[in-house]
Amino acid sequence: MLRRLLAEALGTALLLAVVIGSGVMGQRLAGGNVAVALLANTLATIAGLYVLIELFGPVSGAHFNPAVSLVLCARGALPRAALVPYVAAQLLGAAAGAWNAHAMYGLDVLQWSHHVRAGAGQWLAEGVATFGLVLVVLRAPTARVAAMVAAWIGAAYWFTSSTSFANPAAVFGRMLSDTFAGIAPASAPAFVVAELAGAAAAVLAHRLLGPRLPAGARVAPSHSTLDAHG
Amino acid sequence: MLRRLLAEALGTALLLAVVIGSGVMGQRLAGGNVAVALLANTLATIAGLYVLIELFGPVSGAHFNPAVSLVLCARGALPRAALVPYVAAQLLGAAAGAWNAHAMYGLDVLQWSHHVRAGAGQWLAEGVATFGLVLVVLRAPTARVAAMVAAWIGAAYWFTSSTSFANPAAVFGRMLSDTFAGIAPASAPAFVVAELAGAAAAVLAHRLLGPRLPAGARVAPSHSTLDAHG
Amino acid sequence: MLRRLLAEALGTALLLAVVIGSGVMGQRLAGGNVAVALLANTLATIAGLYVLIELFGPVSGAHFNPAVSLVLCARGALPRAALVPYVAAQLLGAAAGAWNAHAMYGLDVLQWSHHVRAGAGQWLAEGVATFGLVLVVLRAPTARVAAMVAAWIGAAYWFTSSTSFANPAAVFGRMLSDTFAGIAPASAPAFVVAELAGAAAAVLAHRLLGPRLPAGARVAPSHSTLDAHG
Amino acid sequence: MLRRLLAEALGTALLLAVVIGSGVMGQRLAGGNVAVALLANTLATIAGLYVLIELFGPVSGAHFNPAVSLVLCARGALPRAALVPYVAAQLLGAAAGAWNAHAMYGLDVLQWSHHVRAGAGQWLAEGVATFGLVLVVLRAPTARVAAMVAAWIGAAYWFTSSTSFANPAAVFGRMLSDTFAGIAPASAPAFVVAELAGAAAAVLAHRLLGPRLPAGARVAPSHSTLDAHG
Repeated sequence: MLRRLLAEALGTALLLAVVIGSGVMGQRLAGGNVAVALLANTLATIAGLYVLIELFGPVSGAHFNPAVSLVLCARGALPRAALVPYVAAQLLGAAAGAWNAHAMYGLDVLQWSHHVRAGAGQWLAEGVATFGLVLVVLRAPTARVAAMVAAWIGAAYWFTSSTSFANPAAVFGRMLSDTFAGIAPASAPAFVVAELAGAAAAVLAHRLLGPRLPAGARVAPSHSTLDAHG
Repeated sequence: MLRRLLAEALGTALLLAVVIGSGVMGQRLAGGNVAVALLANTLATIAGLYVLIELFGPVSGAHFNPAVSLVLCARGALPRAALVPYVAAQLLGAAAGAWNAHAMYGLDVLQWSHHVRAGAGQWLAEGVATFGLVLVVLRAPTARVAAMVAAWIGAAYWFTSSTSFANPAAVFGRMLSDTFAGIAPASAPAFVVAELAGAAAAVLAHRLLGPRLPAGARVAPSHSTLDAHG
Repeated sequence: MLRRLLAEALGTALLLAVVIGSGVMGQRLAGGNVAVALLANTLATIAGLYVLIELFGPVSGAHFNPAVSLVLCARGALPRAALVPYVAAQLLGAAAGAWNAHAMYGLDVLQWSHHVRAGAGQWLAEGVATFGLVLVVLRAPTARVAAMVAAWIGAAYWFTSSTSFANPAAVFGRMLSDTFAGIAPASAPAFVVAELAGAAAAVLAHRLLGPRLPAGARVAPSHSTLDAHG
Repeated sequence: MLRRLLAEALGTALLLAVVIGSGVMGQRLAGGNVAVALLANTLATIAGLYVLIELFGPVSGAHFNPAVSLVLCARGALPRAALVPYVAAQLLGAAAGAWNAHAMYGLDVLQWSHHVRAGAGQWLAEGVATFGLVLVVLRAPTARVAAMVAAWIGAAYWFTSSTSFANPAAVFGRMLSDTFAGIAPASAPAFVVAELAGAAAAVLAHRLLGPRLPAGARVAPSHSTLDAHG
């Protein structure tokens, strides 16, 4: 269990360091072109998230995200007794990751973000982003979950109006950073509520779509009979 | 069957939300550099499309595209009775996805695009883009179809003069959005005709190229005998 | 054999359409920032090349490149009688692809490039780029050759001073295009000579490095004994 | 053994040519936007590193990095007698790669960098970057190590304040290049010390996290019991 908590804390710390650090670098170098800064932020997040899930998945499941842990606990895939320690490790890791990013860039380690992010559109966006993320976690084959989670978050950085936090631990870590990726503490609760609502919607959609099929057990209808007609 | 239609509708909705939403974000942040906006649009589309095909493929085949459903129906890989419901679910999903994107960005939900896209060059481009897409659908090994479709569309965003819609449902959803990714309704019919022509050409090319070979059954000649000569 | 030639011609045509078309689009949209144009050109080439090799590899080996066909013929992996038809199909395809790109963008179909590319540095660059490409073709496991070739060419677009043609058929097709990706006919012969020299060096390096090992037959020493020491 | 040293030297040479060459090209074309130059540098490095590890891994393990060779030697995965030859081959290769890049771009082959890189933040950054790299090397499944190393370095180019050298041989090669990717010789020793400290921390973390599990032996808890609850 200690190993699993270490994996959650270390993974979440490195994830937040990636997200916040690449935001700082992107903004510093992009000469005012915010799209270029966000492209860099996206590239780093996709690549880092992929590696961290592959690295820590076999130890702890690589949740790095209280919404994911909560859903998996509700479905019996994470023991009830593990939920609070998992979330604590994630929040601790998120703070450590933010502070690590600040230390790397010579910024004050302790900060609060002043970046207000609010409005119905952004809350909807957080819901949609978390909906997709949790659906991926619930349905992706194990061998592809790292690539699929990373790709989803990468897409959601750009298609959602909130740039897709989709993770209450990420919200917490970003609250502690007055940089490109930050979020003002006053904006945080609504983001977390929206994320949990999106996660709940994903659980419902997962049920409606039916059980996940094991890889190879069922070929998509579009490809099963083609050779016979080739 | 309801599950399959839900998967087609939900997948197409998320696809259009990705395409239109990332277009809005790209244009807002790119400071007038259209190439940067299109790079962001491309990145989000590749990543989102990959995830959505992996996610919904095992349920419905993840067509998200009437041209694909039509081809597969003509080849016997989709039951005739399923064609109209599939296309209806795709069109419904496309509209919902466009409206979702507008809601996320605080835009008027109901819009018509004024973006005229026309000319022989763009129609040819739609034909080429759809030709490649359908050829991939007909010939890709199941395990790689998601990555290959996403990569093809990503390339086609840049090499075709139309930025590659390649999908009548995408044309329909984009008609409903007066944003970066939109297309004026008057421009839509010719795009759809060009896409269907490209799909038909792909069916022909598939026949000329011969049956798709199962993975591993035949090693490419360039690699089969090298070790013996190492 | 006709199927193989069709695959070589069609694949090379689509490859050149991707390379030239995305160069036109990149240059049109990038507002004078050549790096942004080349990034778009690179992204499209990587994605397109990956798809085309996966798509046509099982039919013809997906050479799309006379230097590759020549090397494989010299090693006995392509029948001698197939070499000239393969190269002819590739050159024909390259021309068709260039013309297709022009037609999509409403340019004059028939053009000659005026883009002079010359100098010892660029010739060395072509040699290095082709060296790496041919080494990948000779040594990559079949299941990864598409991804590895695409990644190599993507890297070489940026690290070589010639932006990496690495393919006499690509040189030929680009000669026919007075656009971003073009090369003046007078510059072409030296590029082809440099490419063939790089290919020969790769054959030599392949011999010095020893036979390619089948996947799984030998684990890299860095990873074989770690678990025992975990 | 000679084959392994050739693989280390050739792989490190090509890696440095990719890193330095793409830095030169990026800076030349980016019109002063350093973020765009670094994006290009990152893209080329990810793609090149992936190919080179896949290509030379079966021969030598594809370390290309004295810190990696040292860690693997300390763990018994590389024979003691091989350590000095490996490191020598890597340093030789790094120098050759830098010179190759200069020759391709028509620059003076022999240079010293004047790019000062220093400060506690950057040293911390080198430690974090190398920590992650070595953890990946120690724990990644063999089939994914190339993709994971490349992705980690790509992320670290952006999230660390030092742009992530994470490799004493890369430091050495970049000392020899007064270009975008260079580092002044006076800045080099502290970078190497920080890298070795990060590598040592990774060995410790690897022990705390417990043995790496063989692929498939243990499914992440988040995915093991879902189907039963579908």
